[in-house]
Amino acid sequence: MPTDPIRYVTKVDLTKPGDQQPQVHNRWHPDVPFSETIKPGETVKIECLDWTGNQIKNNDTADDILNVDLTRIHYLSGPFNIEGAEPGDALVVEIKDVQPLERQPWGYCGIFHKKNGGGFLDKFYPEAAKAIFDLEGIHATSRHIPHVKFTGLIHPGIMGTAPSAEVLKEWNSREAGLIKEIQHNHDTAVANTPLETNAHAGRADSELAAKIAKEGARTIPGRPENGGNCDIKNLSRGSKCYFPVYVPGAKFSVGDLHFSQGDGEISFCGAIEMPGVITIQTRIIKGGIEKLSLKSPIFIPGDVQNHYGPSRYLTFEGFSVDEEGKQQFLCATTAYRQACIRAIEYLRKFGYNDYQIYLLLSSAPVEGHVAGIVDVPNACTTIGIPMDIFDFDIGPEGGLIKQDMRNCALIEGAKHKLIYEYK
Amino acid sequence: MPTDPIRYVTKVDLTKPGDQQPQVHNRWHPDVPFSETIKPGETVKIECLDWTGNQIKNNDTADDILNVDLTRIHYLSGPFNIEGAEPGDALVVEIKDVQPLERQPWGYCGIFHKKNGGGFLDKFYPEAAKAIFDLEGIHATSRHIPHVKFTGLIHPGIMGTAPSAEVLKEWNSREAGLIKEIQHNHDTAVANTPLETNAHAGRADSELAAKIAKEGARTIPGRPENGGNCDIKNLSRGSKCYFPVYVPGAKFSVGDLHFSQGDGEISFCGAIEMPGVITIQTRIIKGGIEKLSLKSPIFIPGDVQNHYGPSRYLTFEGFSVDEEGKQQFLCATTAYRQACIRAIEYLRKFGYNDYQIYLLLSSAPVEGHVAGIVDVPNACTTIGIPMDIFDFDIGPEGGLIKQDMRNCALIEGAKHKLIYEYK
Amino acid sequence: MPTDPIRYVTKVDLTKPGDQQPQVHNRWHPDVPFSETIKPGETVKIECLDWTGNQIKNNDTADDILNVDLTRIHYLSGPFNIEGAEPGDALVVEIKDVQPLERQPWGYCGIFHKKNGGGFLDKFYPEAAKAIFDLEGIHATSRHIPHVKFTGLIHPGIMGTAPSAEVLKEWNSREAGLIKEIQHNHDTAVANTPLETNAHAGRADSELAAKIAKEGARTIPGRPENGGNCDIKNLSRGSKCYFPVYVPGAKFSVGDLHFSQGDGEISFCGAIEMPGVITIQTRIIKGGIEKLSLKSPIFIPGDVQNHYGPSRYLTFEGFSVDEEGKQQFLCATTAYRQACIRAIEYLRKFGYNDYQIYLLLSSAPVEGHVAGIVDVPNACTTIGIPMDIFDFDIGPEGGLIKQDMRNCALIEGAKHKLIYEYK
Amino acid sequence: MPTDPIRYVTKVDLTKPGDQQPQVHNRWHPDVPFSETIKPGETVKIECLDWTGNQIKNNDTADDILNVDLTRIHYLSGPFNIEGAEPGDALVVEIKDVQPLERQPWGYCGIFHKKNGGGFLDKFYPEAAKAIFDLEGIHATSRHIPHVKFTGLIHPGIMGTAPSAEVLKEWNSREAGLIKEIQHNHDTAVANTPLETNAHAGRADSELAAKIAKEGARTIPGRPENGGNCDIKNLSRGSKCYFPVYVPGAKFSVGDLHFSQGDGEISFCGAIEMPGVITIQTRIIKGGIEKLSLKSPIFIPGDVQNHYGPSRYLTFEGFSVDEEGKQQFLCATTAYRQACIRAIEYLRKFGYNDYQIYLLLSSAPVEGHVAGIVDVPNACTTIGIPMDIFDFDIGPEGGLIKQDMRNCALIEGAKHKLIYEYK
Repeated sequence: MPTDPIRYVTKVDLTKPGDQQPQVHNRWHPDVPFSETIKPGETVKIECLDWTGNQIKNNDTADDILNVDLTRIHYLSGPFNIEGAEPGDALVVEIKDVQPLERQPWGYCGIFHKKNGGGFLDKFYPEAAKAIFDLEGIHATSRHIPHVKFTGLIHPGIMGTAPSAEVLKEWNSREAGLIKEIQHNHDTAVANTPLETNAHAGRADSELAAKIAKEGARTIPGRPENGGNCDIKNLSRGSKCYFPVYVPGAKFSVGDLHFSQGDGEISFCGAIEMPGVITIQTRIIKGGIEKLSLKSPIFIPGDVQNHYGPSRYLTFEGFSVDEEGKQQFLCATTAYRQACIRAIEYLRKFGYNDYQIYLLLSSAPVEGHVAGIVDVPNACTTIGIPMDIFDFDIGPEGGLIKQDMRNCALIEGAKHKLIYEYK
Repeated sequence: MPTDPIRYVTKVDLTKPGDQQPQVHNRWHPDVPFSETIKPGETVKIECLDWTGNQIKNNDTADDILNVDLTRIHYLSGPFNIEGAEPGDALVVEIKDVQPLERQPWGYCGIFHKKNGGGFLDKFYPEAAKAIFDLEGIHATSRHIPHVKFTGLIHPGIMGTAPSAEVLKEWNSREAGLIKEIQHNHDTAVANTPLETNAHAGRADSELAAKIAKEGARTIPGRPENGGNCDIKNLSRGSKCYFPVYVPGAKFSVGDLHFSQGDGEISFCGAIEMPGVITIQTRIIKGGIEKLSLKSPIFIPGDVQNHYGPSRYLTFEGFSVDEEGKQQFLCATTAYRQACIRAIEYLRKFGYNDYQIYLLLSSAPVEGHVAGIVDVPNACTTIGIPMDIFDFDIGPEGGLIKQDMRNCALIEGAKHKLIYEYK
Repeated sequence: MPTDPIRYVTKVDLTKPGDQQPQVHNRWHPDVPFSETIKPGETVKIECLDWTGNQIKNNDTADDILNVDLTRIHYLSGPFNIEGAEPGDALVVEIKDVQPLERQPWGYCGIFHKKNGGGFLDKFYPEAAKAIFDLEGIHATSRHIPHVKFTGLIHPGIMGTAPSAEVLKEWNSREAGLIKEIQHNHDTAVANTPLETNAHAGRADSELAAKIAKEGARTIPGRPENGGNCDIKNLSRGSKCYFPVYVPGAKFSVGDLHFSQGDGEISFCGAIEMPGVITIQTRIIKGGIEKLSLKSPIFIPGDVQNHYGPSRYLTFEGFSVDEEGKQQFLCATTAYRQACIRAIEYLRKFGYNDYQIYLLLSSAPVEGHVAGIVDVPNACTTIGIPMDIFDFDIGPEGGLIKQDMRNCALIEGAKHKLIYEYK
Repeated sequence: MPTDPIRYVTKVDLTKPGDQQPQVHNRWHPDVPFSETIKPGETVKIECLDWTGNQIKNNDTADDILNVDLTRIHYLSGPFNIEGAEPGDALVVEIKDVQPLERQPWGYCGIFHKKNGGGFLDKFYPEAAKAIFDLEGIHATSRHIPHVKFTGLIHPGIMGTAPSAEVLKEWNSREAGLIKEIQHNHDTAVANTPLETNAHAGRADSELAAKIAKEGARTIPGRPENGGNCDIKNLSRGSKCYFPVYVPGAKFSVGDLHFSQGDGEISFCGAIEMPGVITIQTRIIKGGIEKLSLKSPIFIPGDVQNHYGPSRYLTFEGFSVDEEGKQQFLCATTAYRQACIRAIEYLRKFGYNDYQIYLLLSSAPVEGHVAGIVDVPNACTTIGIPMDIFDFDIGPEGGLIKQDMRNCALIEGAKHKLIYEYK
């Protein structure tokens, strides 16, 4: 009657690029071959690469962030054959644990260069930057953002079932439509259609791999049909998530593990990104799509979270008047950007520069809420920063004392404007 | 050494229209005369009308909602002269309590007709509807939405300092600009410029009242400069809010009390609206605008909230693919609308119709989060519904049992389509 | 269809002694006449006197505490006839709200003189003392314990159903037994048998009143059979409490309202005592005693509490080695006393004297836990103090700065030893 | 600049008895040799045996519990030389993580036989019993207590600094005094004086080992001077604990890891006992004993806990009237025992037997509070059971449905009375 150690269905190698590891893949496609089989009810461990497949290093320069190859992302473990899952079912995934790998107790948060990835505030902070976080048990600290320590609400940035051929076609057409419609007005990519370069189709043979590379959807966006890169920080340990199943065996994939993330993941590479191991148990609800009206995943979070008390959040309001003073119409995106900018202007007072704060808002457990979304023309959102993650008082009545906060990792020779003067 | 009862600086009359009550006003303008003076450090009670000034009745028809006169809103108590406050200061308002009036232990949540007010989902639910809530201590229940009981996270929908003449001018020009730019593409108002009809300037004499009516900003939107109608449900009891001061005495106003509200206040008249009494204490931080970089209000919530535990939220994901299947670009507003629609489709299973659910999502303490806002082209948001507010199990594995849920208040003879068939 | 204001079933007079008010009583007895009738399902308001019946004043001396007449306590509102309740049923009481009276926005916490009431630490702090708290909305502050502000977890200290004649007899015999057995070893009362002096039997005529005075159980202890003076701080708003019913109509009584209390209520008059109003709704479970095995009340707390986050409690450990250094055997009472003493020694560093801290631990929302109760010979308990109730940092690494903390109310001319030197 | 994996300062062998492993010890004594040196500020990992040193097996009989050798307990890792710590200092230990060992993903909870260990309720449940828990990530489940799953509030049962010779002498004399005074009235040990049998002095040579065996204090009780076996479930991840230092290098030891425990750890072997690994970081406060008045350890819990919401606890009241109906005087121990008994009587309704419930109350995250401790003659305590750990509704109004709950592990042929009929 011994209880065996929990079975690993995936192990990863931190010394080799992701595309040399057949147990991972980086495109969504119904034909990516199964990586392993999991029985419903079985609890398994799945190691995951960091989303870039070992491209980022633990050092004090952001050169690797500047030069990151985004054609390669995201490396996902799987897809897994969940025994008995059929199209029309719901796949229940219960997250039992997520942990960094003992052999790599650090993660990173990056700000991509505006020309290579960008982020929510790339208009103001176009240069590349990086913060390395040391991960010790439940705590993250960074030499690049001093005087901060926080507990990770650890989670996978990406989980999803494979699309059917029909769903995939819909994705590709929908996103191509957007590009056609608005790309000419933007100087960064508004969406990404299938890209053969560096597509990785897991265990597929070359013919199939070519097909998948040609048709496979990029993993960058989350999508309503299967979740994917939803970046929901609350999808942490203990969560039960319900996914629609579109193909036999469900072809569930997971990756992009985050030690911690703020709501919005604003710097894009914005969580504390890390390789790690996720422990899950699965279950199938026959006919679950119809039973649950499951057009998009739903979930119930777990009962363990970092837990600061409502009165420990310093909260900034943001409205849909943009940084040029222009009125936008009920735009929650603009409103959230404004809330972030208000937080940056405030936190500067303590000695951090804007890049450091941008990294911090991306990676720390900040709460981003929709507040009012009907009071024309202004949407209102809030961003709440847990005051207890700082080892000094950031409260408005705490003295507002400036300290030497060093700097995050930057590009050698780059001319970062470390403080942006908002109007 | 007796401790006297707390001083009321405003009382209201629930039997007379708002515009017959000089202690309230319904436009933002620097010249609205002071209603009363409050010393910093003094705790005072302020009664407030419901936002419509007694237009809505406790009955089973939505006719009053259909015919509500929106030129009259919102009736705010004040403005108050906070002794010693000067432009450039920050005004700290600590909310000690918010309560319904003992003499009117009920409130309402309304869905405005698309042609008269509208709301977040008016495209699908264009008709007027209403739910009356009985308020008993901390609990709200409604005969129009059976099997639900919840605790109010009670708060004022509107608090703000008066704009200076310059700020007011900026508002009017900014919003007029939007109207000019996009109104022709919308069939409901995208913004509201000053409107003389039914403007109420408090204690102003007729000449001043005419000026205020002509120039005064509408109270509908929250605005970055002074907060106003921000509809932040967490600005509840115990909160300390920091406002910029633009005029001598600050001219602080407050109103639009909500017994409870969901993030987004999606039906516009979407909280449990009520007359009530708010107890506040004020404080001035000299030069606080500069000290705190205070372009918009900031706040620290209180330590008392309804408190359900993270694992008690059933959470729906929404992405920025709209209800026509069209891809929108990183639009959190669309994404939040999608999350709401997913919740509606799900909750229908228990016997509620869409109008009832729309009212419920507006008024119950649901949590709306920005999740991911950088994964082009999809923004992802979540809406979390506390399962403990239902007296039956709404969980995906709780049996999904349909009950007779009666109906909300509707318009006699109107042809509401009570269930909208989303694609 | 108007919703009427909630019906008051009891009002009290704050200007007259409790025994001149027939709607209250101060003994437990099956024959105390009904004060009012309440229908199951009806929500009602019940005003309550403070437990002493207006004996304590808002001033800066503890003379009233020293001379308090404890033969008169506790004045309870009721007993109420819950229509249809019969012996063997369970009575469900849902607390909808508890509030101080608008006409008396203050309460008190007292330390009784060792010879008149005493308390948990009377061996070390034998003198009388008092702190007056101003109650403003959710907040309590005291001029007698500066630099502290907290949110009340407001609750009734006493709720209970009337005992049957048999249960009453059991109580009286059980407690008389204890007196006989151990009183000779104690210099304060170990229990109180029925006492005719100042017994108040509500609306009873003089003959019945005499019987009740002679037989009625004192209200000082909580008792397993009916709850009574259980002083459970978590029996706050939203709680549903299940009581055994022993007599027709249940004869439910309530009183001893507390604005706030620490676990243990250590100074005996140790909560923030106040007159106030409680709003309840009742329900009957037929045959509930057997159905629920209801030998003692059970309850489910409400979902609204002050809520500080686990990492905001400074926690002291106490073991069952007493203040003389003597080993006691698994005595959680000794262990909790030790934890309290450790907290007193620590909080002194900030300038408070022991009487002030004793009052604070009694009245603030401190958490007292049983930790280990099996590791012979030491029981271990903890007392957790929410750090956020102080306006300075009480943490071990926060500088430990001493301030002028003034004093609590004392007895003129008394020689309080304000700091006790523990070994 | 690579971040190395965290250093292990102790590894343990799960296949050998504890006394064959020199990196652990099982007595408190100032002369136990250092096991390893830790620098302040360094984060280290420490593996720990389960408290019995591998005596208990994963099977379906309680024979190993019946025959457990309690002369061997508790095996602690250490003592560690915290570089620079001197008598008079405070040692700060921050718990970064506690985890089960990947190679043994299970733990156990035992009820000791009354004649060999006993427990809080051994009068009623004298036989041995056991439950094995499978540990999967954050979750524990047991085939011996079906329909329950909970999240561990994982912690070390024992942490402490070594006593000085003087402190040790005080312990031995104090506990011998108790034995002399009251042992004759008890049929189980009231305390344990030093015992040479199976004493394990770590790396001590035979002469020193003999001295330690003769003088060393048993590890069973927690003690005020150094904490030790305090069994505080909230001393979990993220906690910062402050210990007095009595000997050079502090000689900090740790062990008795618990995956989860209820307040009281009532069955003595009552947590989910397991081998595991704890990650800590230390710091020294020079002169900290005086600075912090540190007679007993103090701590600040971490910000991560299982978190159920106050309204999800079914709470039982217990008063100090014992199970014979005899009145005890303000005895919180009796009161807590009564609360436990009330919970047992209630939970039986669902099909569990008393031994199963006894195990469950010991090991699940139940909350035991001191409620009132001054209302002569009754102390009142509460035990709160999180309803969300059951996969069915245990609420009083949830139908009270009985199921087949199988059984816990028992002794072959033993005549357990599985239900005790309380009066």
